[in-house]
Amino acid sequence: MATQRMIDFLADRRPEGPCLVVDLEVIRDNYLRFARAMPATRIFYAVKANPAPEVLSLLANLGSCFDTASVPEIEMALTAGATPDRISFGNTIKKERDVARAHQLGVSLYAVDSIEEVEKVARAAPGSRVFCRILTDGAGADWPLSRKFGCSPAMALDVLTLAHKLGLRAYGVSFHVGSQQTKTDGWDSALAQSADIFRTLSDRGITLSMVNLGGGFPTRYLKEVPGVPAYAQGIEQALAKHFGNAIPETIIEPGRGMVGNAGVIKAEVVLVSKKHVEDKARWVYLDIGKFGGLAETMEEAIRYPILSARDDDQVGPCIIAGPTCDSADVLYEKTPYELPLSLTVGDEVLIDNTGAYTTTYSAIAFNGFPPLATYII
Amino acid sequence: MATQRMIDFLADRRPEGPCLVVDLEVIRDNYLRFARAMPATRIFYAVKANPAPEVLSLLANLGSCFDTASVPEIEMALTAGATPDRISFGNTIKKERDVARAHQLGVSLYAVDSIEEVEKVARAAPGSRVFCRILTDGAGADWPLSRKFGCSPAMALDVLTLAHKLGLRAYGVSFHVGSQQTKTDGWDSALAQSADIFRTLSDRGITLSMVNLGGGFPTRYLKEVPGVPAYAQGIEQALAKHFGNAIPETIIEPGRGMVGNAGVIKAEVVLVSKKHVEDKARWVYLDIGKFGGLAETMEEAIRYPILSARDDDQVGPCIIAGPTCDSADVLYEKTPYELPLSLTVGDEVLIDNTGAYTTTYSAIAFNGFPPLATYII
Repeated sequence: MATQRMIDFLADRRPEGPCLVVDLEVIRDNYLRFARAMPATRIFYAVKANPAPEVLSLLANLGSCFDTASVPEIEMALTAGATPDRISFGNTIKKERDVARAHQLGVSLYAVDSIEEVEKVARAAPGSRVFCRILTDGAGADWPLSRKFGCSPAMALDVLTLAHKLGLRAYGVSFHVGSQQTKTDGWDSALAQSADIFRTLSDRGITLSMVNLGGGFPTRYLKEVPGVPAYAQGIEQALAKHFGNAIPETIIEPGRGMVGNAGVIKAEVVLVSKKHVEDKARWVYLDIGKFGGLAETMEEAIRYPILSARDDDQVGPCIIAGPTCDSADVLYEKTPYELPLSLTVGDEVLIDNTGAYTTTYSAIAFNGFPPLATYII
Repeated sequence: MATQRMIDFLADRRPEGPCLVVDLEVIRDNYLRFARAMPATRIFYAVKANPAPEVLSLLANLGSCFDTASVPEIEMALTAGATPDRISFGNTIKKERDVARAHQLGVSLYAVDSIEEVEKVARAAPGSRVFCRILTDGAGADWPLSRKFGCSPAMALDVLTLAHKLGLRAYGVSFHVGSQQTKTDGWDSALAQSADIFRTLSDRGITLSMVNLGGGFPTRYLKEVPGVPAYAQGIEQALAKHFGNAIPETIIEPGRGMVGNAGVIKAEVVLVSKKHVEDKARWVYLDIGKFGGLAETMEEAIRYPILSARDDDQVGPCIIAGPTCDSADVLYEKTPYELPLSLTVGDEVLIDNTGAYTTTYSAIAFNGFPPLATYII
């Protein structure tokens, strides 16, 4: 939720155009909440969620590790003060020369989900640790992941066995329960599969050490979500159930759960209009849209709270769209959004809980509009 | 189609990473083809399709006018050498202060589709010409437009009447038949509606002058499309049918039709893998995806030709995805794409006819990857 510091900043500075304000105090609280709820688990912040240097430095100082998607993200984490042993190259799709560059920078932990990727890591980062991502069904997640990442558990056995043969350290298993996971038992079936892989490989003489529990920890948008302690308890129970008294090392990769509620976007109503005199729903056009930082409204997956000074007035349905000449730049239409009927051109709105997956998603110059401005406070 | 100049450029320069190469000679040919086929129609290039300074300068020199979506696009057109009378502010969603800025820069032609927008233009750009965009059904288009832009013809009468009352020049009607329109008679019903509006307003003593035929002119992707002369003939016939011997001034706003086939993206295969040993379709991961410039693959709307040196080999189905840690970054999955079975890691591919709606759509730093590099030759 928008903090008083964010609201004061916007009132004092009155920045022109749409912008994101991120409150570092909220991120600090989030980090400490994860650390307290899961003391035995190492936290790898998913840099892609918000790679602002101030965010990375804060987390590096707090002791966080970093999950990175590319060489530039590795370099940003290093610049922020993370040592290479606190960085994971978590993208399963890597150019071999990027693996070589990461190896040169000292990174020794890599995600894989295929034979081909293990071969690359063995050549370009010999002796490193690899974990294999397995496919899960994403049930219970608002933004379920496609089959793009991960392989079947049967194939994971082959991948990790090959890693071992090629001189890599077969280090563990990872999975992702889907972004914005709202069920605290969402980790159970993936942990059952992970434990099976641990046992089968142990029989082959390969000892895995780690389960990467991934991300998925939600941010509160329009609906209430469980708190971190409830997730921690769900995960702890599932670990005990499937691993008994041989609980492995665990890591988590929160992105949205770390920074989502730490940001608010200030935007402006550019136009409120109808298409026909008799239309029931208005069109409300904002100065930010799908290409200006709100890419996660794709298929209306994430429904952000939208606040204004008129929130006590009577509401009515509207379709919300961005400012570009692109017909795909519509935020909410299939399920119309309820906004105050008094909302009018020039009104300021706050799009809440937009700290994750907004700034770097924004288009560089779409329709001539600049990328989303960001203020870190 | 990729020209020899593009292929030679890539062979000589061997640029690192994904990049777009645009051949200005193709754009010159496209412009002249429009100009020859529709000699009585003024061409307003849709700047958003590709706003590279070299593209704008070429078209300004050839005599093109410019359809712009924002103040930065107006400034780019002016910088390229266009005089303000050759610029249309074609976005129906404008901040009043942006209208004022455009007016200050000398722009006197504005798109509107609502009462509220007419009032803004009357206040901020008094005396200007306005055209009202009407809704069409987009039948026959590969990327049909939503209801985001335009109003009902009945409302257009009110909008243009108000413009007249407020001291603006009620100048005409515009519509858009949908992007990548493949039917040459796709303009007929919209022109029938336009002629009705001309007649009704004439009865009220308001004389409209212009019909803005919009864009929609296609680029050849995987399927053959009709040539410009066929569209010109279809439009000419529809104009004669509905306007008789009182043919209005006409303008067109080609974007994709002007630059789509003038660009090719060079990309690299990062990974080819399967999820299960028994899977039939492979996953082919490229170093460019939905966030790196290929946003128009959303809902798999645009299917670009993908070429490689292995195109004589046997083909098989694959799912094509981008390089980011985002599960939504999948280009073609619902309808798998046929690519050579021999395609392998490190292979270079050419994604053809990518001159439009790629560069400025690309994310500024998504997952740490830089925006799409562009070379204009």
